[in-house]
Amino acid sequence: MTELTKIFGTSGIRGAIADKVTTNLALDLGRALGTFLEGKGTVGVGTDERTSREMLRYAFISGIVSTGTNVVDLGGAPMPTMASHSRMPGISTSVIITASHNPPADNGFKFFVGGREYIRSEEVFLESRVADRQFIVADWSNIGKISHWDIRETYIQRVKEFVLQRGGKADGMRVLVDTANGAACNYTPHILRDLGFKVTSVNSHSDGHFPGRPAEPSPQNLADTMKMAADSDFAVTLAHDGDGDRLAVIDEDGQFIDQNRVIALFARDEVRRHGGGTVVVSIDTSNVIDELVASAGGKVIRAPLGSLQETFEKSGADDIVLASEPWKPIFMDLGKWMDGIAGAARLAQMVAEEGKGSCIELMKTVPKYPMLRENVSCPDKIKPQFLPRVKELLLPEISGVEQVLEEDGIRIERNDGSYVLVRVSGTEPKARLYIGAKTQEGLDKLAAIAREIMKQVLESFDAS
Amino acid sequence: MTELTKIFGTSGIRGAIADKVTTNLALDLGRALGTFLEGKGTVGVGTDERTSREMLRYAFISGIVSTGTNVVDLGGAPMPTMASHSRMPGISTSVIITASHNPPADNGFKFFVGGREYIRSEEVFLESRVADRQFIVADWSNIGKISHWDIRETYIQRVKEFVLQRGGKADGMRVLVDTANGAACNYTPHILRDLGFKVTSVNSHSDGHFPGRPAEPSPQNLADTMKMAADSDFAVTLAHDGDGDRLAVIDEDGQFIDQNRVIALFARDEVRRHGGGTVVVSIDTSNVIDELVASAGGKVIRAPLGSLQETFEKSGADDIVLASEPWKPIFMDLGKWMDGIAGAARLAQMVAEEGKGSCIELMKTVPKYPMLRENVSCPDKIKPQFLPRVKELLLPEISGVEQVLEEDGIRIERNDGSYVLVRVSGTEPKARLYIGAKTQEGLDKLAAIAREIMKQVLESFDAS
Amino acid sequence: MTELTKIFGTSGIRGAIADKVTTNLALDLGRALGTFLEGKGTVGVGTDERTSREMLRYAFISGIVSTGTNVVDLGGAPMPTMASHSRMPGISTSVIITASHNPPADNGFKFFVGGREYIRSEEVFLESRVADRQFIVADWSNIGKISHWDIRETYIQRVKEFVLQRGGKADGMRVLVDTANGAACNYTPHILRDLGFKVTSVNSHSDGHFPGRPAEPSPQNLADTMKMAADSDFAVTLAHDGDGDRLAVIDEDGQFIDQNRVIALFARDEVRRHGGGTVVVSIDTSNVIDELVASAGGKVIRAPLGSLQETFEKSGADDIVLASEPWKPIFMDLGKWMDGIAGAARLAQMVAEEGKGSCIELMKTVPKYPMLRENVSCPDKIKPQFLPRVKELLLPEISGVEQVLEEDGIRIERNDGSYVLVRVSGTEPKARLYIGAKTQEGLDKLAAIAREIMKQVLESFDAS
Amino acid sequence: MTELTKIFGTSGIRGAIADKVTTNLALDLGRALGTFLEGKGTVGVGTDERTSREMLRYAFISGIVSTGTNVVDLGGAPMPTMASHSRMPGISTSVIITASHNPPADNGFKFFVGGREYIRSEEVFLESRVADRQFIVADWSNIGKISHWDIRETYIQRVKEFVLQRGGKADGMRVLVDTANGAACNYTPHILRDLGFKVTSVNSHSDGHFPGRPAEPSPQNLADTMKMAADSDFAVTLAHDGDGDRLAVIDEDGQFIDQNRVIALFARDEVRRHGGGTVVVSIDTSNVIDELVASAGGKVIRAPLGSLQETFEKSGADDIVLASEPWKPIFMDLGKWMDGIAGAARLAQMVAEEGKGSCIELMKTVPKYPMLRENVSCPDKIKPQFLPRVKELLLPEISGVEQVLEEDGIRIERNDGSYVLVRVSGTEPKARLYIGAKTQEGLDKLAAIAREIMKQVLESFDAS
Repeated sequence: MTELTKIFGTSGIRGAIADKVTTNLALDLGRALGTFLEGKGTVGVGTDERTSREMLRYAFISGIVSTGTNVVDLGGAPMPTMASHSRMPGISTSVIITASHNPPADNGFKFFVGGREYIRSEEVFLESRVADRQFIVADWSNIGKISHWDIRETYIQRVKEFVLQRGGKADGMRVLVDTANGAACNYTPHILRDLGFKVTSVNSHSDGHFPGRPAEPSPQNLADTMKMAADSDFAVTLAHDGDGDRLAVIDEDGQFIDQNRVIALFARDEVRRHGGGTVVVSIDTSNVIDELVASAGGKVIRAPLGSLQETFEKSGADDIVLASEPWKPIFMDLGKWMDGIAGAARLAQMVAEEGKGSCIELMKTVPKYPMLRENVSCPDKIKPQFLPRVKELLLPEISGVEQVLEEDGIRIERNDGSYVLVRVSGTEPKARLYIGAKTQEGLDKLAAIAREIMKQVLESFDAS
Repeated sequence: MTELTKIFGTSGIRGAIADKVTTNLALDLGRALGTFLEGKGTVGVGTDERTSREMLRYAFISGIVSTGTNVVDLGGAPMPTMASHSRMPGISTSVIITASHNPPADNGFKFFVGGREYIRSEEVFLESRVADRQFIVADWSNIGKISHWDIRETYIQRVKEFVLQRGGKADGMRVLVDTANGAACNYTPHILRDLGFKVTSVNSHSDGHFPGRPAEPSPQNLADTMKMAADSDFAVTLAHDGDGDRLAVIDEDGQFIDQNRVIALFARDEVRRHGGGTVVVSIDTSNVIDELVASAGGKVIRAPLGSLQETFEKSGADDIVLASEPWKPIFMDLGKWMDGIAGAARLAQMVAEEGKGSCIELMKTVPKYPMLRENVSCPDKIKPQFLPRVKELLLPEISGVEQVLEEDGIRIERNDGSYVLVRVSGTEPKARLYIGAKTQEGLDKLAAIAREIMKQVLESFDAS
Repeated sequence: MTELTKIFGTSGIRGAIADKVTTNLALDLGRALGTFLEGKGTVGVGTDERTSREMLRYAFISGIVSTGTNVVDLGGAPMPTMASHSRMPGISTSVIITASHNPPADNGFKFFVGGREYIRSEEVFLESRVADRQFIVADWSNIGKISHWDIRETYIQRVKEFVLQRGGKADGMRVLVDTANGAACNYTPHILRDLGFKVTSVNSHSDGHFPGRPAEPSPQNLADTMKMAADSDFAVTLAHDGDGDRLAVIDEDGQFIDQNRVIALFARDEVRRHGGGTVVVSIDTSNVIDELVASAGGKVIRAPLGSLQETFEKSGADDIVLASEPWKPIFMDLGKWMDGIAGAARLAQMVAEEGKGSCIELMKTVPKYPMLRENVSCPDKIKPQFLPRVKELLLPEISGVEQVLEEDGIRIERNDGSYVLVRVSGTEPKARLYIGAKTQEGLDKLAAIAREIMKQVLESFDAS
Repeated sequence: MTELTKIFGTSGIRGAIADKVTTNLALDLGRALGTFLEGKGTVGVGTDERTSREMLRYAFISGIVSTGTNVVDLGGAPMPTMASHSRMPGISTSVIITASHNPPADNGFKFFVGGREYIRSEEVFLESRVADRQFIVADWSNIGKISHWDIRETYIQRVKEFVLQRGGKADGMRVLVDTANGAACNYTPHILRDLGFKVTSVNSHSDGHFPGRPAEPSPQNLADTMKMAADSDFAVTLAHDGDGDRLAVIDEDGQFIDQNRVIALFARDEVRRHGGGTVVVSIDTSNVIDELVASAGGKVIRAPLGSLQETFEKSGADDIVLASEPWKPIFMDLGKWMDGIAGAARLAQMVAEEGKGSCIELMKTVPKYPMLRENVSCPDKIKPQFLPRVKELLLPEISGVEQVLEEDGIRIERNDGSYVLVRVSGTEPKARLYIGAKTQEGLDKLAAIAREIMKQVLESFDAS
């Protein structure tokens, strides 16, 4: 097999439209996708609000229909909406053209089937065809057809049903929503309104220039929104990235809520609701999740970063009730996709009902433990040997080890609920250290040990 | 002639969809309009974002084409955009379905020709046809045709040209925009961005429920927005009503700028720019306008409330450069319509250039004088005699009278720039008193006199 | 209950747009329909190609959404397509705006639910609401929403499936299609092409003026098409009316095939295919149907004119395989609607397969017996007594009577396959006589008897 | 400069979608066109009805906007309509995706500016960019925008105006129209109806499979239509190719009218109407044109095949009133494009008015002279020397020579109105001989001479 240019990253395809995600790539990807589908079936195509959306959409659709596969063009739609589309009858695959929270000069593609993202083996097929250019070319009488559909109401209806199975309508509780001028502008505020909230929106006119703030809903980017959140009497503030898979939560004092606590909240709730079940979270999440899930009678599986969906397929677990990376909850009762929009609606409902109108009250039920996350330089060439050596030296220094996970870095879990995770980055020349513990003192001790050992290992490479 | 039900108010047709602005009225109005146009020509139809927009649009369009007149359906569009449409080649009239800043349960119609609103004689024709139901009915082979057009880019282009004739692009100055979840959501933020501003928006997702605040951009309704304005480093904050004809301005300290000062600012600027000219303002505006216009070499005409457009037609003045009621500037170089969107863009540009990035700096050049506005009870039946008696008693008490205007109430202007205006309301059983002066002391004296006399007059009716 | 204006005829609502089917009626009907549906659910709306289609569609849709019921606007679509839409999930009712084969100055409405036309009790509800104007008026926050969908591919797919369950694709057999410049222009030729026929079309550009011929596919109106059919080597020629529920068949010699033989052909085929079953036909059809259906092991029920759908509901028969009035076959395996388009496709397939490329060959298997149809004057006021007296006198004169049907006129069936039917018209001051027999001699005898008796009865009224 | 692949032929780009006119070429052509326009301006894009239209349209539009140039997508539209679009304000270029009368497996592109086709120098720019791939790539914030417009009514209006400047409306004269199931299906029948004709159409449902007949309107392909023309009482029959630039005319006896006579008819008419002027025709047209043009006081210029538009630019003549290749009239009062649709409308009008309802009558005013057109084998490699030798030998043998034209082959014109033209084909290994004369005897003599000399010349190459 020929050496492929790997065009997929951990979350679909992303890059600058100037040199990576070009019209030519879009056309070829369309041809590759149609070839994957053997020139049959129907593909849904949607986009976020980026300025390059039409340019890429047109080339991509041309490529798909050139193979004989049909297209239903869904226009602008958030990521969760497109994912949900892939589960509809007669739909072979749905694709969103988005670069999520990347800068506006980037764009990309995400592929869904049956509600989940494409897994690696499916991506490899597309990469191979883009590389070897072995595309199906439909006969003139079999070229695919293009139709148009507005999916918005159908998706909104589905999310409202999902939320109303979990609680009631609110009675005018005030919420602030920040949709990053992105694809959720026409979704989250309207769903919340229909669910009985009084909605104020900020950064919520659609604009692919992302004028209000960068699309990533990080505390830095949300500084102004956090001030607004504190300033008026909003019970909670909910923020998205550009395509609506991410959810950030800010309380009525304008404090940003740590992602691990949001995941823990959703996880405990879904496990309780199902009387047990499995929660799948990414390796970089903290043990507060395990604590709350255990309290509700469920169990936690950790997956490598970017591999939640892979894990669904492989794990064989049929009782998964929630999965999540930081920011991106997957509610299995809704579908296998990351859904910041449904997350926002459910969280607002929990603030209204369980928090009695206060996000601070609601979050009091989720402990807040010390955490650490830091990076050190780690050249790419030493990465393969780095982790084994760290493990070799680190493990003996840690007491009370309960479990060691090695699928993505080394995560050592102790019997007091603390943990150490050392990983190497897939995209930067860096190693990352994550520590969680119930006390600051406990965390500091683990940090001292881990830092020292990482330093030793790195120095050993310098010496050699 | 039969007695008509008067369906037009001071600003088009407005009322509850439940009993006044019904589908039947919409159908009949469409038939009346087509009859007015003799079953010929083409009418543009647009709407704001109200929930009843489609229902009324469909019935109205049906009525128009039933007479033989064609329709171009422009979908959702702000009021100024629809007004500008009425000036395009081949367009007989353009209509927006809107109730401006009324509550969401209301809706209405505004008619434009050649850029200006319909004047009374034109409205009377429509009212007469709705009353007598003498509509043109087109033969089956001559029914009007319906086409669709997206006017957005054309209007946006025109506003940008207008603003760029007055100054340059900004260099990333931050502005906050509040479009009342209305028709300007997809216009003002984008125009400002194209003009070089860094735009944050609040209440700017389209929603006919007006979830964020009532549509009128009054200080009370903008309380939250004023807090946001003060909280971050926005150079200026600009707010609209539901259909974009109104503009409210808030400075970087979150202070709401009085409308008279905004008008005075625009008026002085346009007069300077044209080396003179006439400014038409409504009777209820203050003398700060006169002061600034005079300083620039122009003159001011006052018009009854709701009659700016009527005044254009009647006055014969061919050097009008600006006209305005409170909130609603008409830039004659742009067209004869009230345009809060163009106003927002121009004001932001003036903050950037003349205010050097500070709205407070910019407004320092516009004096801030004491003003008073208050109401007293005044039963409808005494209104006809009320004003003559007030005039009779009041005029002798006021010294230094320079001019007395009597077209809409009695306005007495003094040679020190102070004035007293007494009007009766057209919609409520009230009389209104407006006073302006350069000092609080001066104002208090005039107020004491006017209150006393209004009281005497009202008591004289009680006695009789 | 108030006296109603009856607005429905035997086949929906029809009349001149000038005075009956006006924009006001369309609006009221929309309101009545939404009221019937209790302001809930979703209604599909489509139209044929008449020039008044947009005018009526807009008013009708406005009326529906004013009650809270949603609308999916399907644009132009043939009658069978709209009927099929009414069976889709989530669709409460589908409506086509059409006047079928009436002149272009007329238009009308046909209502479908679950694939069948509205029955009388449903029509009465709509008539009552139009009369008493007791319409539901939705609150501003509950007005219905309008969406758009292109149903064409879905319907075409369904018809092709239906036909391909009955046989294979053709191998380029030539067919001529005449779609009356109506709603089937974009359907029948394309379905036939996809089924392997080489299609030439005449009168097949869409035009609501019906320029090529009047919309009714009668031999007189098809004179030119019959010449074309004879002139080139088309195996069969298929013609529709304006909305595609009717099918006329012309053989390769340009001969128009009698409707009874077309029905008999379809009926025998469906009964054979199901190994038995019931065929429902209208009272005015001939006994050739009974002969062929019996030969295939099925049985025939006769229904009053315009009441096939009523009969489905009432008869309780669950083995109906085909129903038909002249021109309008209902294939129960496809759905409960009259479908000239599916009929055309199936007939072409039968010509190709059973006729081996010759319509004349195919029709040789369906006997051609003498028939008579004639009218005599019969004033409306004597109609109630006319039929009983005819029965009283006629029955004793006819020998070998096997069955007498009295649901719509008097139909006397004899044991040699001949029959006499006497009816009074529902729309004209006429009585109608229909006779069928296996020989001309047999027919002449029955005709002499029936004419004489009808004459006697009519004279007896004159005398009185 | 690099050697270019020449992708343009004599009439734009055409070829099989399987290997020449691919999605990749469409994308590159779009990028080349945007580059030609410097990433500015707006391009109109339309298509005929071919099955590959969407596939190519999407890729082409993607390419254009990737450079910063905007696109207005006009959907399906005939060639003359797209050409007329290129003359609208703000439009830089308009492009139709069509392969005219080629088979359905082909497609192509034609470019227009200011109403005329691109000339060679413009084509060379596009070819060069496709070859060297030096395309402009717009920055993310400057990507072109896509809008949609329905041009149909505007074009139809323009054609009707043009025709009604030349005569009146008809009074129901019957015409048969055959639009080749192509782009004119929704144009020619409707224009003729609006002009008062009673229109029957054949092969006039849109279908990119061209089911009714091959798209070229040649007598062979129109055999069935000619039978229909003869069979009923149509005053004239008008036929197009797939994109509507070509017009074929059939009289009421079903006789196909020679193209030279159609051109002569239009040419005389336009010259008369303008009181003189120049007519430009292609080299292969007969002298009947010269005779009629001269009789009306005008003069004729002959242009190489495929170069009418080039000739406009070069000739400097400012009094051109008509130009034409066989089938493709250009009415200069309408615009610089070939317009079979306007031709059809004008011809029908002339039949009604000048022919008093008879095409045969009308054509009696245009003489019908003997003509000959035949081919002989002529290998590509000898083509360069073939014509000089033919000229050398032929010229001395012809008497009464008035003029010799050598721009495209050798055309010898004699003083009795006869002529001989010898050309070599640009696409096949053939030489072509055209002769016209007023008598068969005269033609035969010229034919004998020319055949003998062509034979000699060809043999001389064989010998060498």
